[in-house]
Amino acid sequence: MDNTLKEKIFNLLGKDTAASNLNIKLVEIDNGTAIAKMEVDERHMNGLGTVQGGVLFTLADFACAAAANSQGKIAVSLNANINFVKAVNSGTLTATATEMYLRRTVGGYNVDVRDEEGELVANFQSTSYRKDPK
Amino acid sequence: MDNTLKEKIFNLLGKDTAASNLNIKLVEIDNGTAIAKMEVDERHMNGLGTVQGGVLFTLADFACAAAANSQGKIAVSLNANINFVKAVNSGTLTATATEMYLRRTVGGYNVDVRDEEGELVANFQSTSYRKDPK
Amino acid sequence: MDNTLKEKIFNLLGKDTAASNLNIKLVEIDNGTAIAKMEVDERHMNGLGTVQGGVLFTLADFACAAAANSQGKIAVSLNANINFVKAVNSGTLTATATEMYLRRTVGGYNVDVRDEEGELVANFQSTSYRKDPK
Amino acid sequence: MDNTLKEKIFNLLGKDTAASNLNIKLVEIDNGTAIAKMEVDERHMNGLGTVQGGVLFTLADFACAAAANSQGKIAVSLNANINFVKAVNSGTLTATATEMYLRRTVGGYNVDVRDEEGELVANFQSTSYRKDPK
Repeated sequence: MDNTLKEKIFNLLGKDTAASNLNIKLVEIDNGTAIAKMEVDERHMNGLGTVQGGVLFTLADFACAAAANSQGKIAVSLNANINFVKAVNSGTLTATATEMYLRRTVGGYNVDVRDEEGELVANFQSTSYRKDPK
Repeated sequence: MDNTLKEKIFNLLGKDTAASNLNIKLVEIDNGTAIAKMEVDERHMNGLGTVQGGVLFTLADFACAAAANSQGKIAVSLNANINFVKAVNSGTLTATATEMYLRRTVGGYNVDVRDEEGELVANFQSTSYRKDPK
Repeated sequence: MDNTLKEKIFNLLGKDTAASNLNIKLVEIDNGTAIAKMEVDERHMNGLGTVQGGVLFTLADFACAAAANSQGKIAVSLNANINFVKAVNSGTLTATATEMYLRRTVGGYNVDVRDEEGELVANFQSTSYRKDPK
Repeated sequence: MDNTLKEKIFNLLGKDTAASNLNIKLVEIDNGTAIAKMEVDERHMNGLGTVQGGVLFTLADFACAAAANSQGKIAVSLNANINFVKAVNSGTLTATATEMYLRRTVGGYNVDVRDEEGELVANFQSTSYRKDPK
């Protein structure tokens, strides 16, 4: 994909303080795909001592936002669905976003969150609304 | 509901560092229902300057966790669905969780997140898995 | 709402053979809302002798389609989420669709499916894509 | 998998009149997986002349039910999420269900519905509740 656009998305997502406060990092981005990573630490825990569902959602949604914004329009999430497959409490998690479909004003994305062994931790789907940049 | 259980849930959710780092507070809890609040601040923003979807999810999921744990079993989310209805960037958000159904090992919850004017910001549904406390 | 549009939607949904084969009937429609009914019969059963999930989905989606098309654009479902709350095997089911939000090209709808006692049987949310009629 | 159990599931799903009225056929089943097929015909259409969302849901849910029942317990859907990716109006559709996770009383399934060219038509996820057969 175009380097100017890539830089623009890295800048946009770099201003996402909710993600940066959780140490979520954008690693790769290309047309309709993106990869984000997060090393689990004490900020991420629920009352049971495992990574909180909202944190897993934020990681998945962040990778999704990168993929959805890679197609040259501003994309915002309309809705999302997440399945919590495996509880984790350490290691680095990798969220891989891929495009399921792309129409003029909407796009659909799937995100798999996996642990270091490649096991599925959470599975996420989202619909984005796309508008032309002003 | 029983005060000992209520205290136990406040303690459990008080250990949720992901929620407390976002200033999410449990306000009320009763059998199958709960209310949580969050005053929007600069920690909550996405790259577009509005409250990030993962933050709204975390607020909704937190209220849901309180409601789901109010019935005397340990409840963990299996999955959740969220609709983002209105973008917000300030004020106090209120998440109200109600029980849609309760079976022996699963429960279904709806959460509405509203702004100070009572307008719907996000709508969330989740299925919880319930196990007996050890 | 406008009577010409109302008639147009009744005509459009009257051509839905999948719904008419299940005896699903559109009862009411207004701006952003619609009601559909279905009397349970032997066509609707799964292998366990209760109304099949796909039939409940079809009923909910039909009411949703009516509500979504009530706003003067052609609306098609992008995705939907359904919770199965109560198993039923007889009686008349009523699906009530309401609009959660409406933007230029997308709309969000909630549908409650209830039995004759008013108890919740299924709860459904959907996002529609809206395009101008040719 | 065990042939007695396989036969039992084919029998159970053979009694699903909602599916058989749509000409949905169970083709394969194994531990945690199943394949169902449906040749598109005039029974499946919505008012716009494409296969209705409820029909695609029923096909996906049927494959899911087979996969979920393949593990020796009675499984019923708690909820499901479907993304409509591509409109179709002819040909044979294939739904392939795979298990995302399996716990004692719940299981999670993904179903891809594809056309004859292998293109994704719909993508479905569901959570099943599992109980011991009486």
